Amino acid sequence: MSTLIKNGRIITATDDYVADILIENEKISAIGKKLPEKVDSIIDAKGMLIFPGGIDPHVHLEMPFMGTFSSDTYETGTRAALYGGTTTVIDFILQKQGNSLRAAFDEWSGRATGNAVGDYSFHMAVTDFNDNTKGEIKEMVEEGITSFKTFMAYKGALMIDDRQMIGLMEEVKQQGGMVTVHATNGDVIDYLVQKHRSEGKLSPLYHYLSQPEVTEAEASERFVDMTNYTECPGYIVHLTCEGALNAVRNATRRNQKVFVETCIQYLVLDASLYEKDFDGAKWVMSPPLREKKDQATLWAGINQGLVQIVGTDHCPFKWEQKLMGKDDFSKIPNGHPAIEHRMELLFSEGVAKGKISLNKYVEVTSSNAAKIFGMFPKKGTIAVDSDADIVIFDPNTKHTISVDTHHMNTDYSAYEGWEVTGKVKTVLLRGKVAIDNNECLIDKGYGQFVKRKKVSQNI
Amino acid sequence: MSTLIKNGRIITATDDYVADILIENEKISAIGKKLPEKVDSIIDAKGMLIFPGGIDPHVHLEMPFMGTFSSDTYETGTRAALYGGTTTVIDFILQKQGNSLRAAFDEWSGRATGNAVGDYSFHMAVTDFNDNTKGEIKEMVEEGITSFKTFMAYKGALMIDDRQMIGLMEEVKQQGGMVTVHATNGDVIDYLVQKHRSEGKLSPLYHYLSQPEVTEAEASERFVDMTNYTECPGYIVHLTCEGALNAVRNATRRNQKVFVETCIQYLVLDASLYEKDFDGAKWVMSPPLREKKDQATLWAGINQGLVQIVGTDHCPFKWEQKLMGKDDFSKIPNGHPAIEHRMELLFSEGVAKGKISLNKYVEVTSSNAAKIFGMFPKKGTIAVDSDADIVIFDPNTKHTISVDTHHMNTDYSAYEGWEVTGKVKTVLLRGKVAIDNNECLIDKGYGQFVKRKKVSQNI
Amino acid sequence: MSTLIKNGRIITATDDYVADILIENEKISAIGKKLPEKVDSIIDAKGMLIFPGGIDPHVHLEMPFMGTFSSDTYETGTRAALYGGTTTVIDFILQKQGNSLRAAFDEWSGRATGNAVGDYSFHMAVTDFNDNTKGEIKEMVEEGITSFKTFMAYKGALMIDDRQMIGLMEEVKQQGGMVTVHATNGDVIDYLVQKHRSEGKLSPLYHYLSQPEVTEAEASERFVDMTNYTECPGYIVHLTCEGALNAVRNATRRNQKVFVETCIQYLVLDASLYEKDFDGAKWVMSPPLREKKDQATLWAGINQGLVQIVGTDHCPFKWEQKLMGKDDFSKIPNGHPAIEHRMELLFSEGVAKGKISLNKYVEVTSSNAAKIFGMFPKKGTIAVDSDADIVIFDPNTKHTISVDTHHMNTDYSAYEGWEVTGKVKTVLLRGKVAIDNNECLIDKGYGQFVKRKKVSQNI
Amino acid sequence: MSTLIKNGRIITATDDYVADILIENEKISAIGKKLPEKVDSIIDAKGMLIFPGGIDPHVHLEMPFMGTFSSDTYETGTRAALYGGTTTVIDFILQKQGNSLRAAFDEWSGRATGNAVGDYSFHMAVTDFNDNTKGEIKEMVEEGITSFKTFMAYKGALMIDDRQMIGLMEEVKQQGGMVTVHATNGDVIDYLVQKHRSEGKLSPLYHYLSQPEVTEAEASERFVDMTNYTECPGYIVHLTCEGALNAVRNATRRNQKVFVETCIQYLVLDASLYEKDFDGAKWVMSPPLREKKDQATLWAGINQGLVQIVGTDHCPFKWEQKLMGKDDFSKIPNGHPAIEHRMELLFSEGVAKGKISLNKYVEVTSSNAAKIFGMFPKKGTIAVDSDADIVIFDPNTKHTISVDTHHMNTDYSAYEGWEVTGKVKTVLLRGKVAIDNNECLIDKGYGQFVKRKKVSQNI
Repeated sequence: MSTLIKNGRIITATDDYVADILIENEKISAIGKKLPEKVDSIIDAKGMLIFPGGIDPHVHLEMPFMGTFSSDTYETGTRAALYGGTTTVIDFILQKQGNSLRAAFDEWSGRATGNAVGDYSFHMAVTDFNDNTKGEIKEMVEEGITSFKTFMAYKGALMIDDRQMIGLMEEVKQQGGMVTVHATNGDVIDYLVQKHRSEGKLSPLYHYLSQPEVTEAEASERFVDMTNYTECPGYIVHLTCEGALNAVRNATRRNQKVFVETCIQYLVLDASLYEKDFDGAKWVMSPPLREKKDQATLWAGINQGLVQIVGTDHCPFKWEQKLMGKDDFSKIPNGHPAIEHRMELLFSEGVAKGKISLNKYVEVTSSNAAKIFGMFPKKGTIAVDSDADIVIFDPNTKHTISVDTHHMNTDYSAYEGWEVTGKVKTVLLRGKVAIDNNECLIDKGYGQFVKRKKVSQNI
Repeated sequence: MSTLIKNGRIITATDDYVADILIENEKISAIGKKLPEKVDSIIDAKGMLIFPGGIDPHVHLEMPFMGTFSSDTYETGTRAALYGGTTTVIDFILQKQGNSLRAAFDEWSGRATGNAVGDYSFHMAVTDFNDNTKGEIKEMVEEGITSFKTFMAYKGALMIDDRQMIGLMEEVKQQGGMVTVHATNGDVIDYLVQKHRSEGKLSPLYHYLSQPEVTEAEASERFVDMTNYTECPGYIVHLTCEGALNAVRNATRRNQKVFVETCIQYLVLDASLYEKDFDGAKWVMSPPLREKKDQATLWAGINQGLVQIVGTDHCPFKWEQKLMGKDDFSKIPNGHPAIEHRMELLFSEGVAKGKISLNKYVEVTSSNAAKIFGMFPKKGTIAVDSDADIVIFDPNTKHTISVDTHHMNTDYSAYEGWEVTGKVKTVLLRGKVAIDNNECLIDKGYGQFVKRKKVSQNI
Repeated sequence: MSTLIKNGRIITATDDYVADILIENEKISAIGKKLPEKVDSIIDAKGMLIFPGGIDPHVHLEMPFMGTFSSDTYETGTRAALYGGTTTVIDFILQKQGNSLRAAFDEWSGRATGNAVGDYSFHMAVTDFNDNTKGEIKEMVEEGITSFKTFMAYKGALMIDDRQMIGLMEEVKQQGGMVTVHATNGDVIDYLVQKHRSEGKLSPLYHYLSQPEVTEAEASERFVDMTNYTECPGYIVHLTCEGALNAVRNATRRNQKVFVETCIQYLVLDASLYEKDFDGAKWVMSPPLREKKDQATLWAGINQGLVQIVGTDHCPFKWEQKLMGKDDFSKIPNGHPAIEHRMELLFSEGVAKGKISLNKYVEVTSSNAAKIFGMFPKKGTIAVDSDADIVIFDPNTKHTISVDTHHMNTDYSAYEGWEVTGKVKTVLLRGKVAIDNNECLIDKGYGQFVKRKKVSQNI
Repeated sequence: MSTLIKNGRIITATDDYVADILIENEKISAIGKKLPEKVDSIIDAKGMLIFPGGIDPHVHLEMPFMGTFSSDTYETGTRAALYGGTTTVIDFILQKQGNSLRAAFDEWSGRATGNAVGDYSFHMAVTDFNDNTKGEIKEMVEEGITSFKTFMAYKGALMIDDRQMIGLMEEVKQQGGMVTVHATNGDVIDYLVQKHRSEGKLSPLYHYLSQPEVTEAEASERFVDMTNYTECPGYIVHLTCEGALNAVRNATRRNQKVFVETCIQYLVLDASLYEKDFDGAKWVMSPPLREKKDQATLWAGINQGLVQIVGTDHCPFKWEQKLMGKDDFSKIPNGHPAIEHRMELLFSEGVAKGKISLNKYVEVTSSNAAKIFGMFPKKGTIAVDSDADIVIFDPNTKHTISVDTHHMNTDYSAYEGWEVTGKVKTVLLRGKVAIDNNECLIDKGYGQFVKRKKVSQNI
């Protein structure tokens, strides 16, 4: 099976040129000016941008939660991702405290296998680090799970303490992996949640007021300090604010480097949405949305090279699930649906508005995730021998986001009515046309697990 | 004329893969697995690394100085550069105080035209900013000179004061250019030079002691402050030390970005060389070599993405010229020969020793210079439609640097006896084999002037 | 001649207690509970606060300027100061470029001697540092002039360049003195002034816009860098803004200490006053008033111990003099009348509103100036053997500032209508009642020159 | 009972003058030149310095520990303190987890009452913050215990988590108190202790290596962040290192102030002492001794006004107690004997060597502790109406520290053989001569509990 994409303007994290792309056996085999046209199919991409398939390294599909699950399955979630130009996602396996990593790995693999439409991998969230867990780190790395997520919040459920953190870092470093972190001070947040509840302050606004900037700045400083001591590669997920990015900026003075991911919502939405009574529940997530000044910080961080990735933390719930917290913000399931919109929103708000370059766009939506998480050059670029994960993107078409047209399994949109410039036209996944003109042409089960390599801090 | 380079491992600032490269009409026309072999010539690059031709954005060729000239002409200098894998250099035109930019442009063009072996462009050093000069900025941008160099040192000769600096920044910003800077506090240095001289402290060591770290840190802070106020794109040349890089790091906190160039010597040599009596004159340059802690800072800065370019500040003098300062360090011509060694030294000390990745190597030796200075994608990458400026590099061959084998027009080597891992084997410039197995196959006059585009801070 | 002040609440920079004060021969001879009452006069201070006489280390009296003089003479200025509780002022001698320090000293001494009502000393402003000047530093220190003022602005008139600055620092350090600085980047300000003028932007608002925060932050960083290198004691006069104080705060990280003075107007007024058309001329001074956030910074700086002194930069002009700049802000004489209001305003806005403690009040209005400038313990405290410079202050009386009641020689008040809490009731200068119930009881010529000691950075 | 101290040079945190001091009824009643000599006794202090009695706000007397007690009782400890010029100490009550504050208060009061020779007060260490404890804060403030100590280390014994910390801060702020903190990251230390033990690294050196600088820097940042959020007055005890002080320095940029105490040992000893095999046990304390660069930081911090107090963390053990950890550093009782030497060591190393001024000496050994902890002006100064706690100090006598001559209840000296310049000659406590010429003239039970006032951040 061979395909020729003709005349597109190819954008990688470095390059920008017009050429044809020849695809054979799921991979790119040549890029050039006058490639032979004896192929099975030809796609004309004249006037289109050609991006490497997006990689969203922060999603939660079918995540068990309060007796229910986040509302996108591997099928619906990865399909929605494809509609939005994201060909690979990295989901989070959550170890159950008291249980093994292996058990969690099996459970998650069971849910994903045969169901995913797009490609996927897993981070392993270590929620109980002990001698047994320590022994499993090496095993997980051999399975291709080379990033280990930690929580500095959610005490009693997901949180590990600093003692476990240091122990984990030392072992993960030894095994060639990376530690990633949800960096907010869970103790302080727990205090504020209970304080607000005991004062009868129960609306979504208090979700926001229970997680002030300092809770994220503090935990980020602490994580940065610990990685500095252990020299374990470190990565902060969903960083939202100036205080937290300054922890990373300050650490540059001691010659340190820590990777930073932000998410699309923190770049384009702000906390004023929490003032809309219970409607604010649509954006109840952790960390919460922040201020305009934090948006400015994050855009600057991207151009400074200090924020490497824009993900989503996609964790969708239906409205009836959100209603669980109608009378108490602390019972609102945390998360919002975004997996489908990341690429288009970032293009529209970032590239089209002149905030970032096309190369930077590819870097933060795809290449850096592939590199940092050990999937490069299989994923994350348009180059000979890479997987033919390709987005053909129309930079000029405008359209409007709506629950009526999105493909995620939620009954509301967090971006309802938002007009975006630029549209995903065609998506190829390993050489196969997955999306074309708003239609999904591949079935569940097409998506494959991506086994990842050991990581390096020098990318 | 067509050429096929087969089986090389192609490295760009992003990518890393094995493929063939087809070159037609000076440019790359295709990259792929099974490209047609009907070409004029085939080069087998099996086992070799393929880099984009190096770009050295900081050289001084045939620079008029104290009644004489820096010892490399455009012919000898660009030829030596090619031997070392650098296919394009950017030299500095120096406006004469009282004269026009145009006059200087004509003078420099006159020396370069017909003489350069490799490709070249110019920065314009503005040493006298006034109403006339202001009017010429636009003109220079139209000529393809989009970067304007300033000196915060050398009062009475090259230095402009802060008033001129701000005025220049406002005009350059308006015209889509960039201001680059030699950031050291000339007043303080002048004071220390005179102080040392009046105390009879006349050896090369006092060149070093007359330019303490604070003189560079201070001027860097000042330049960063001024670019913050004017929002003019800014770039610090030959940054050498922790204090100066911290000026840039601190500015990240206010969402600012300033570009930084260091030079190969500041990464691999240190100030202990000045303790060798007059032999230290070999390394008399401004700023001087620094300490081990500063080397660590610069390597970290590269990986942090805060140092974008490694150049040379190549400014060679013969020993008899250096002897002008035998009895007075302040009369030693400033500069050292390095244009030929940058690529090999950085590979050997950086890549082979695990300090930087291959992609980062290409980024700092080529791609970033092309992007920041408006030559991309003509220069700075290996991609379809780019100039076929290509280095075929043997990563395993070891060899030793010596005055006996180098091609620069100096009678000593600043790196004599240094064993390097990795060697430039073949170099193509716009499709033509320029260097092969230690032989230069092109003549003077082959080198072309590269007209540059307007710049952007978002690369 | 002996006096007993009974029952007052004595406040020093450290202490706070109720006791009687016995004064003999201009000095305090005892402080206690039941001191003998056989004295020439007894003052009952029950319910009153007793402060050491205020010291204003930043005033400009009878300063030659544009063919005229600042409008307060030594007589009117020091008398107004006494009305406001300030018993000692330090004025600035301005060296004329090309002339000697001695000549300036003689000129200023000539104006002051026999005319001052209150005590005074001088800083020496070095505006032309050369070999001759260098030789005079020691001489001036022997005359009791141990602080040397520099200007980083006013090029061609008062400014010295960094080369002179470093030279001066080295000599002053040698002689046991201190370098103080007007730290704003004169070059940048000159550029902006000319730019605004050439654009026809001529109102007082453009005075403000010609001196943005960065001009002060930059020069402060530079001065801090230079004192760090030379290890000369350093002091920044009239610091106004966050950017500048951060230069000092950042330097604490390298174990450095630089003294900081702010002025009362920067704590209580802000730049919104410049929006009042030409009325804004009342507050045209350099640096200009700043923003609310800068006020917060300065109050915090006082409590952090990083701002040691609150002065006035008193430099009054009559309205007709201000009118010289009616059509061009750059011709408005810089300065405002404040010498009389500093103590009462700071009490009212600082102590009465709970921003600073009583001890801190005395520290920043009197003791620190005495210590930093070498007049302690003669001046600056209430202790045995110190000059009996004493303010008896009623903390509860409210009154309103007005041109109708002030004693400065200006025909407008910069604080017209401001209601203050707390009032100077009685002032003693060297044991003699100088002010009592709004009347001045001493004559011109009573004020003496205070010869100052060498300084120390450890106060 | 009245006493007259004649001719001494009186030093307070502000003043420096020669005068006589009249003492009546335990308090100072007058200070002056020719005070009446009709008194019960006269002390001639000609040539002597007169300091306010030292206040050591960080001691552990008779502290229950591992089935035994720190080796100084209230009697031996406060007596040794008096020998060294310290007239008041503040000890730490330790709440037992599960028990009330009141119970701990009673237990500690029981031990101290009738036994102390010198005056004393208590901090309350809150080790279990819950609803009951919350209710007791107000009660403790009413008892005169206004400072609440917290531990971020010693999990399971003394440590509270961040949730408790925030809760405590909010309540303490409400009640007018202050939260003080042992700021080291207990989790990380616990990890390193276990790691070293499991690797058979058991000597005192590993005590040091288990508490690297980052563990203190991190916890200091975290505490500073939490006090910034709650606006509760905060105080860091026994701060030892650059990283930790930088947390406080950085916070000045957001207009924050946190009080800092260091201890005499961190200024004069360093970690090289741990290389002496088990002899290093003499200096096993937490945090451990640090590096030379940290000493430089702390001396600078004192002069910058960012370190307000020098205490001791006196916690003595006899050698047989230290031997409990002969085979395992983690079993060595933490602490060293220093209560007797603080004043003389700081004078000798600080004042006599020109590092700090006499006024600063008094500030950090006495006045600041009195002010910060609500005992001023009863304690901490030499002024009318203050307690006549007075040290008559001979600045010139040299003597040598030794276990043979010290008065602390330990059988070794941590400063054996150290020659100090300056000696405590006579000490008065509330008007009574307590120490004279190496003899203690008062009995146990003379020492009184000092009830403390509410605190303020503006001292």
